[in-house]
Amino acid sequence: MNMRSLASPATVTKLSLSIHPSSFLTINPFFFFYKFKSSHHNHKPHFFSIRTCTSSSISAKPSSNFRKNPPTNSDPKLTSLRRLFSKPDVSIDAYIIPSQDAHQSEFIAECYGRREYISGFTGSAGTAIVTNDKAALWTDGRYFLQAEKQLNSSWILMRAGNPGVPTTSEWLNQVLAPGARVGIDPFLFTSDAAEELKQVISKKNHELVYLYNSNLVDEIWKEVRPEPPNKPVRVHDLKYAGLDVASKLSSLRSELVKAGSSAIIISALDEIAWLLNLRGSDIPHSPVVYAYLIVEIDGATLFIDDSKVTEEVDGHLKKANIEIKPYNSIISETENLAARGAALWLDTSSVNAAIVNAYNAACDKYYQNYENKHKTGNKVFDGSNEKSDVGAPIAVHKLSPVSLAKAIKNETELKGMQNCHLRDAAALAQFWDWLETEITNNRVSTEVEVSDKLLEFRSKQDGFLDTSFDTISGSGPNGAIIHYKPEPESCSIVDPNKLFLLDSGAQYVDGTTDITRTVHFGKPTAREKECFTRVLQGHIALDQAVFPEDTPGFVLDAFARSFLWKVGLDYRHGTGHGVGAALNVHEGPQSISYRYGNFTPLVNGMIVSNEPGYYEDHAFGIRIENLLCVRNAETPNRFGGIQYLGFEKLTYVPIQIKLVDISLLSATEIDWLNDYHSVVWEKVSPLLDGSARQWLWNNTRPIITKSV
Amino acid sequence: MNMRSLASPATVTKLSLSIHPSSFLTINPFFFFYKFKSSHHNHKPHFFSIRTCTSSSISAKPSSNFRKNPPTNSDPKLTSLRRLFSKPDVSIDAYIIPSQDAHQSEFIAECYGRREYISGFTGSAGTAIVTNDKAALWTDGRYFLQAEKQLNSSWILMRAGNPGVPTTSEWLNQVLAPGARVGIDPFLFTSDAAEELKQVISKKNHELVYLYNSNLVDEIWKEVRPEPPNKPVRVHDLKYAGLDVASKLSSLRSELVKAGSSAIIISALDEIAWLLNLRGSDIPHSPVVYAYLIVEIDGATLFIDDSKVTEEVDGHLKKANIEIKPYNSIISETENLAARGAALWLDTSSVNAAIVNAYNAACDKYYQNYENKHKTGNKVFDGSNEKSDVGAPIAVHKLSPVSLAKAIKNETELKGMQNCHLRDAAALAQFWDWLETEITNNRVSTEVEVSDKLLEFRSKQDGFLDTSFDTISGSGPNGAIIHYKPEPESCSIVDPNKLFLLDSGAQYVDGTTDITRTVHFGKPTAREKECFTRVLQGHIALDQAVFPEDTPGFVLDAFARSFLWKVGLDYRHGTGHGVGAALNVHEGPQSISYRYGNFTPLVNGMIVSNEPGYYEDHAFGIRIENLLCVRNAETPNRFGGIQYLGFEKLTYVPIQIKLVDISLLSATEIDWLNDYHSVVWEKVSPLLDGSARQWLWNNTRPIITKSV
Repeated sequence: MNMRSLASPATVTKLSLSIHPSSFLTINPFFFFYKFKSSHHNHKPHFFSIRTCTSSSISAKPSSNFRKNPPTNSDPKLTSLRRLFSKPDVSIDAYIIPSQDAHQSEFIAECYGRREYISGFTGSAGTAIVTNDKAALWTDGRYFLQAEKQLNSSWILMRAGNPGVPTTSEWLNQVLAPGARVGIDPFLFTSDAAEELKQVISKKNHELVYLYNSNLVDEIWKEVRPEPPNKPVRVHDLKYAGLDVASKLSSLRSELVKAGSSAIIISALDEIAWLLNLRGSDIPHSPVVYAYLIVEIDGATLFIDDSKVTEEVDGHLKKANIEIKPYNSIISETENLAARGAALWLDTSSVNAAIVNAYNAACDKYYQNYENKHKTGNKVFDGSNEKSDVGAPIAVHKLSPVSLAKAIKNETELKGMQNCHLRDAAALAQFWDWLETEITNNRVSTEVEVSDKLLEFRSKQDGFLDTSFDTISGSGPNGAIIHYKPEPESCSIVDPNKLFLLDSGAQYVDGTTDITRTVHFGKPTAREKECFTRVLQGHIALDQAVFPEDTPGFVLDAFARSFLWKVGLDYRHGTGHGVGAALNVHEGPQSISYRYGNFTPLVNGMIVSNEPGYYEDHAFGIRIENLLCVRNAETPNRFGGIQYLGFEKLTYVPIQIKLVDISLLSATEIDWLNDYHSVVWEKVSPLLDGSARQWLWNNTRPIITKSV
Repeated sequence: MNMRSLASPATVTKLSLSIHPSSFLTINPFFFFYKFKSSHHNHKPHFFSIRTCTSSSISAKPSSNFRKNPPTNSDPKLTSLRRLFSKPDVSIDAYIIPSQDAHQSEFIAECYGRREYISGFTGSAGTAIVTNDKAALWTDGRYFLQAEKQLNSSWILMRAGNPGVPTTSEWLNQVLAPGARVGIDPFLFTSDAAEELKQVISKKNHELVYLYNSNLVDEIWKEVRPEPPNKPVRVHDLKYAGLDVASKLSSLRSELVKAGSSAIIISALDEIAWLLNLRGSDIPHSPVVYAYLIVEIDGATLFIDDSKVTEEVDGHLKKANIEIKPYNSIISETENLAARGAALWLDTSSVNAAIVNAYNAACDKYYQNYENKHKTGNKVFDGSNEKSDVGAPIAVHKLSPVSLAKAIKNETELKGMQNCHLRDAAALAQFWDWLETEITNNRVSTEVEVSDKLLEFRSKQDGFLDTSFDTISGSGPNGAIIHYKPEPESCSIVDPNKLFLLDSGAQYVDGTTDITRTVHFGKPTAREKECFTRVLQGHIALDQAVFPEDTPGFVLDAFARSFLWKVGLDYRHGTGHGVGAALNVHEGPQSISYRYGNFTPLVNGMIVSNEPGYYEDHAFGIRIENLLCVRNAETPNRFGGIQYLGFEKLTYVPIQIKLVDISLLSATEIDWLNDYHSVVWEKVSPLLDGSARQWLWNNTRPIITKSV
């Protein structure tokens, strides 16, 4: 699955006038994992001050200025929301409604879609702000057209990144009289994001008000609000997890001690699922459950809705000495931690402002209560040398150690990943065989229909649970829209005479897949072949890379681009993201990207995608994606006495030879392709029969090598 | 010329037990150009906290502890120096003697070799500290053996980077009683380095004392101190410079205005030489002159010893409205700037502490004098928006803008570089022809003798001035010493049966060269051939790279390593440094390195070296170095509407085919080699006759290509 990134800010600025908005950008938090695990982009203006525009809609002014009808302000939801502003326990002048849930999840449960509910805008990224007389929605270039359609006239569309369009906090500073009160639901902002917002709006003496008691949108949403997810949690079997909870907790506790802390709050849902060998169904595509986790040296508490905890899960948690408390008691328990004098590890780039603020306030209270005897202010340290006074609470601000531990797969997890990839490959062979037959027989399918058919084949595979993200099924020009999501009512047919890009993945009980193939059902043009071949050459170069330990992913990124660069081509997204083992299809901390900020080295056992592409606006899109596992390489030398690393493929699905301009390939590259197809046949054919097996045979034949 | 860098600290730590110290590290300031232009490494412990050791000399204790004779403290120089400590206007407890001159030059004039004079240690890098009862010298792994030999028993050798060895400032904090006074010559420290030192020693309440009046070593050096250089300056003709001084100053003044400043002090000698189209002979290898330059909006002042200014230079400067003042008046003129209310651009990573401190003090005085009417403290801003009050002095701390302007060569400078490279190539062809003949005739030469012979051939070329650095002439194992400097009394012979590495360069009136070739006069082993070929493949990959604008050099670094990495090999230095046009052989701000801190994009007109290598300790060294010019590439596409860039070669000297394992090369790589040699012949043969021409012919014949 493509990471939908954007070019470096400097580049983007220059490009802004010449590119099609729809092919443009999506912000994936994993690109910035090293600095902050995820963050709402409007609160990170220095990272996300991107410029996007369409040739038809370049404008420094908000859309409402061009509308015939002035804002009526008659939107009943807005009216209800504003009514709450003046309640005594609220008393605000503006309310910010972000897209996030309380855990900064990439996908969220429907009941947390507050921004969608209040604004009517259904895109995945956006921030709404409502003041007493204005309502504005920020989204990025992918969603300008969609937002224009979906917002009613009470809303101003803020085309984020267009010249002259203010950021959310800039706008607040513009439209509010100095000294205003800006309300947020502190659960929906990371502590870092809230702090930054606070600082920017303080320039106009605005106050950032944390509304702990309730989310104002929820208050007006009422009965029609979808129920919170309530499906039972399941134990992720040790035969897939490889490591029991006790061992994982024990390692985590060593990290706590090393960092001079005695407790940690974990709020990232995949981290909790991984650590506790639990899986859930609360969120589409991600097999996680809404929960918080506090791990202390001598105990642990999972904050989760009781109704989701089956007897099996209850026993599983008891075995690991994990207490269960209600999801909503996280704040009071955080305060208890301070009262008990815990040195609390808080990853402020991931944990929400509600929790961090509650802990800080409780610390202050602690020190006040002790009549300033131990008063040292609200201490924070980096976990290096200094120790906290025994019993005096202290915040240790560091990135969560679970992120890296989770990223480095054990052999059991890897085995699960390998196995599910073979079953996934079988489903894909059946699918491609089916689609080619349909097209040969002149039967027309839409992008959504083929996507549904693929799901049908996958769902027949053992252990299938879900798709791992919304399938990107793009014919012709739609393939050039990196973030394309076909909708039944509006999508294209799969045109036999155009390139077809299919990026999809699945959640299985033993692993997670993510694969992109680009094919042509008719006769590709020379241009299409050249572009495809250069993408393939980049894919091969990265696949074959060997590199010394301690190499961050970005060092390898250029390998995947160099063949495109030679002819002045490129692609505006990273080349690889981490993938969870039966977990999120996007995970950090590693990445392979042309953004040079992520210094996490690639480590034996990590999984990354290898997905270079090329996108010609209004014409076609190409992407070739396999998942790879980082592996120690057996090099004949070990200069410097260190380990060298390489990649092992997880994905085994044919690459369409028809699209390859063989004259561009070196002998080594031809060998790579033939070897790959030979292994594909060897590994996947046993899982197939009938026409799908024949299809696999046909599509794994070696191409004639150059005579050397 | 190799940049003699070191591996990333993390890697080095791991490597420290398995490598030979002599092949280890040299610190080149240009690797850190982006952060600070140059700095003495002992003052940047966070960048330079490197670990080096030999298997025989690993020790956490200073060397003196192992000596039979206890320190006698009878060293007469130390006694004289210490006597000065108690003078009323000095009154210090310790004195630090760094290697630097007042301009942070890579090479320095003999009279500024204070650290060498006081300690007897002649290595290029090191810091001496003398207290009332101790004298210690820090140097890095390259120089441990040499320092052991050269230091007398009054000195403690501090093996910088060895486990347990303190940094200079840590040591001061260890050995001095709290509240001590640590003296420095503030001209010899950049402002940033002095500030950092000050901060670290303040932990023990030590005070850093700037001794403006005289350098204490100079005081005891007296008559035997070499005269300061006094050769005349010359005008760098417009036919080589391409741009007159007025135009350069005009661009600089635009930069000043943009940054909200009204004056700038330039102290880097190559920046002054470039800006004023002047060249000098004050320093070996670098055609620069000791001077400071102040440029104001309506005038400019060159601070230089009058005796060096010829009538021609005087006229040249007058034409550009540049006043001349004595070199030593820089401090008083800096104070005048403050008094006149200048907003002074100060690059604190390059300008010395004496100047910066003088300006700050003068600003304070200014504000005091005005009875606190305008008092705003010692204002500093980043040059973005804010403007200083008209007439109120303010410091603008930014990197010098001259560095980038100088790095982007104009067409005239490039023409000069091309021309001198051809003449240099002719000299090299004559040299290699001569050396091969010598060896064929069983005449033995030492490394120094062949180096002298090369100088002889070069000096016959038109416009030859000097070598651009000390020639690295290393036979067999000496080639593995990246920083090897053969000495007449101790060097090896050039062994016909071993690899011979020759890294050399010259200063010509029209340009600067830097080239490395590695050759074998007998029959290379398969190992040597494989290593050479992989280095060559990396060289070709970088040479052929095409990349989008705004790409920093480090993105390309992996191209040069990937063929070595495949078999677990690597090299511990960067791949490319900037080169001046008839100026310093090392310049910034760009670099091509595996250190990822330099984000300076490669720009059309920049010059970089392309010098991958491989070094097998105690056996052989391989390096293949050409200079390249960054050039706009004519790509068939321009994705994103941006410019793509590539490289144009400047160096045209054959690469020894005997060392190439052709079976490892792709068809494209063979083509590259044949094309290169064909152009070498075409360009250089017209400059040759006789046996050298024949040698060139023999060494530029195409190798048989694979049938495709």
